[in-house]
Amino acid sequence: MDKSLQTCFSFRLNSKDGNARAGILTTPHGDVETPVFMPVGTQATVKSLTPAQLEELKVQILLSNTYHLYLRPGADVIQEFGGLHNFMNWHKPILTDSGGFQVFSLGNLRHVTDEGVVFKSHIDGSTHNFTPESAVNIQEKLGADIIMAFDECPEPHDRRYNEQALARTHSWAQRCLQAKSRPDQALFGIVQGGIFPDLRARSAEFLTSLNFPGYSIGGLSVGESKDDMLAVIEVVNAILPESKPRYLMGVGTPYDLIEGIRRGIDMFDCVLPTRLARHHAAQTLQGRLNLSKAEYARDNSPIDSDCGCYTCTNFSRSYLRHLIIAKEMLASTLISIHNIFTLTSLARTLRKNILDKRFDNTAAQLLANLEKVK
Amino acid sequence: MDKSLQTCFSFRLNSKDGNARAGILTTPHGDVETPVFMPVGTQATVKSLTPAQLEELKVQILLSNTYHLYLRPGADVIQEFGGLHNFMNWHKPILTDSGGFQVFSLGNLRHVTDEGVVFKSHIDGSTHNFTPESAVNIQEKLGADIIMAFDECPEPHDRRYNEQALARTHSWAQRCLQAKSRPDQALFGIVQGGIFPDLRARSAEFLTSLNFPGYSIGGLSVGESKDDMLAVIEVVNAILPESKPRYLMGVGTPYDLIEGIRRGIDMFDCVLPTRLARHHAAQTLQGRLNLSKAEYARDNSPIDSDCGCYTCTNFSRSYLRHLIIAKEMLASTLISIHNIFTLTSLARTLRKNILDKRFDNTAAQLLANLEKVK
Repeated sequence: MDKSLQTCFSFRLNSKDGNARAGILTTPHGDVETPVFMPVGTQATVKSLTPAQLEELKVQILLSNTYHLYLRPGADVIQEFGGLHNFMNWHKPILTDSGGFQVFSLGNLRHVTDEGVVFKSHIDGSTHNFTPESAVNIQEKLGADIIMAFDECPEPHDRRYNEQALARTHSWAQRCLQAKSRPDQALFGIVQGGIFPDLRARSAEFLTSLNFPGYSIGGLSVGESKDDMLAVIEVVNAILPESKPRYLMGVGTPYDLIEGIRRGIDMFDCVLPTRLARHHAAQTLQGRLNLSKAEYARDNSPIDSDCGCYTCTNFSRSYLRHLIIAKEMLASTLISIHNIFTLTSLARTLRKNILDKRFDNTAAQLLANLEKVK
Repeated sequence: MDKSLQTCFSFRLNSKDGNARAGILTTPHGDVETPVFMPVGTQATVKSLTPAQLEELKVQILLSNTYHLYLRPGADVIQEFGGLHNFMNWHKPILTDSGGFQVFSLGNLRHVTDEGVVFKSHIDGSTHNFTPESAVNIQEKLGADIIMAFDECPEPHDRRYNEQALARTHSWAQRCLQAKSRPDQALFGIVQGGIFPDLRARSAEFLTSLNFPGYSIGGLSVGESKDDMLAVIEVVNAILPESKPRYLMGVGTPYDLIEGIRRGIDMFDCVLPTRLARHHAAQTLQGRLNLSKAEYARDNSPIDSDCGCYTCTNFSRSYLRHLIIAKEMLASTLISIHNIFTLTSLARTLRKNILDKRFDNTAAQLLANLEKVK
């Protein structure tokens, strides 16, 4: 790692409780206390929320999507503004993904070779090309604090495809490291290998040998069982170096946070809080509520009487249901505020319990409350 | 006026400059400095904005719609919550209209008699009935600080219909006064009469004789010329008592505010700031901008570099256009913030210029900037 990166990017472990870790990630745009939940701002906006509202929610770091921003408004436009932080007016840390997951999700609209991926835009059908080099180049234009290696994301149960894809993902990881030129961004490697413990172990070992400043576990929460997901996390985290942050990509229900943190994960992201909000569902530590239900029409209580968010402090289920039935945008805003608060404050609570060496007791209580809602 | 109302509702003129007036309206939920622009929260929400954002915009008073709230969620539901202030978490003054304008806008879906209006819901076609008595009763359940008389709103150029309707509106005004029972609400009378100066004068004189605590001018901004509108305002305001607030209903472009205030109007409301925002148009004191235009794709400047709102302080036209093209809800929120700020701060600026006896100069400058955009 070059010297300037060492100065502006570091990870420090404050405490461990079992395998659960409390740490601090230092980036050019400030510190992030881990474990942390990162809300997703796919198109340079966390849907329906202003940056001021995200700051009020004590959000520490956002994720944004290279695939979407490359297509619209274009990486060059964002570069002209001095990067994503200025463009979207978010001056705390940002992480961008590499576009890998999105282009592999395009199905028939993409073609993969060892060189990279040719794909058609979901917006206008135009043809584009991502390579490890271009994915890094685009992310350098976007200017996030943390950028991700370009990887292949296979169906997790297909052994043969996962073996082939792993070779490519590893070769691409090396090419991404070669292509990287900005000293003020940290490039994370992505462990792949589907649900197969031996492939995951091989991937974790190989990527560790490349000495990335951080690692992520990719290709999960895409149809595998919770047991498979947790088994993969255990295998991988037993190999990844203690001194580097570990990011579980695209995963982030309350259950996932608790079980992931228990196994040594430091960072999570998920679109669920905002997507569920647009579909009228509130996430709580006692399960999900569908607020469009008639039973809430005259319910004077907040979504969650234990919750301290702006929505629960000020609005009733009845009012939220009214907004939903009247098709008012404010419904999405207020439920998104609550859902993001639920996850960011859960991560904060668990961090405190790690520092206090009470993680297991707290986790057991929380899981009991969550019932079967995962 | 009974004693408790006198205590909790009053209007005091601070200053006059020509016919322009600066005053203070005192209500049970606080003072309102006039002239004032009232944003519209049709369904108990100013579309896409939280009450916290409205407070940050220094909004002093909101308007909400009896017709919409009666249908959804129902006046009884809101009454159970102790009224609209609690239901929507807005603890400053609120004004509700009577539902008159909305039911008369239903066209074929309504039938008028001297008793009231039978109409079909625009939501589900169910049949309902508004009378002066029920319109007051519903507004008492909603619990706004200022409520409006139930009136008939004819096409403004139809002399014969306006004559007939005026008799009904006057009779209904008396019935509304009779029906009113809450001492903590002020009921305003509504002057009608289309574009006809003699009918408007007759209406202003009759309603003044009923001694309402405030008066509004209804039935404008519905297709008449600006000259007709301004002529009506002049005729009516020459008759209405100086000591009572005057509210020009449903009117509120920058041009309308300047010309209305010049003629002695104290209160305005209009859905335009939020409606235009949802259609990507920003209101400025130099005219309107359609932010979806390609010319803004790389425009680093704010909507209005003279504007101090959250949107103009933090976001570029390029970012706003990106949100619009990407169909992101945040576009509506950020442009609504700007548009409402433009109108509330214009009213505040004009108030200051009335107090400083500089209204005419300032108005002339502002109108020159507005060009022909009305």
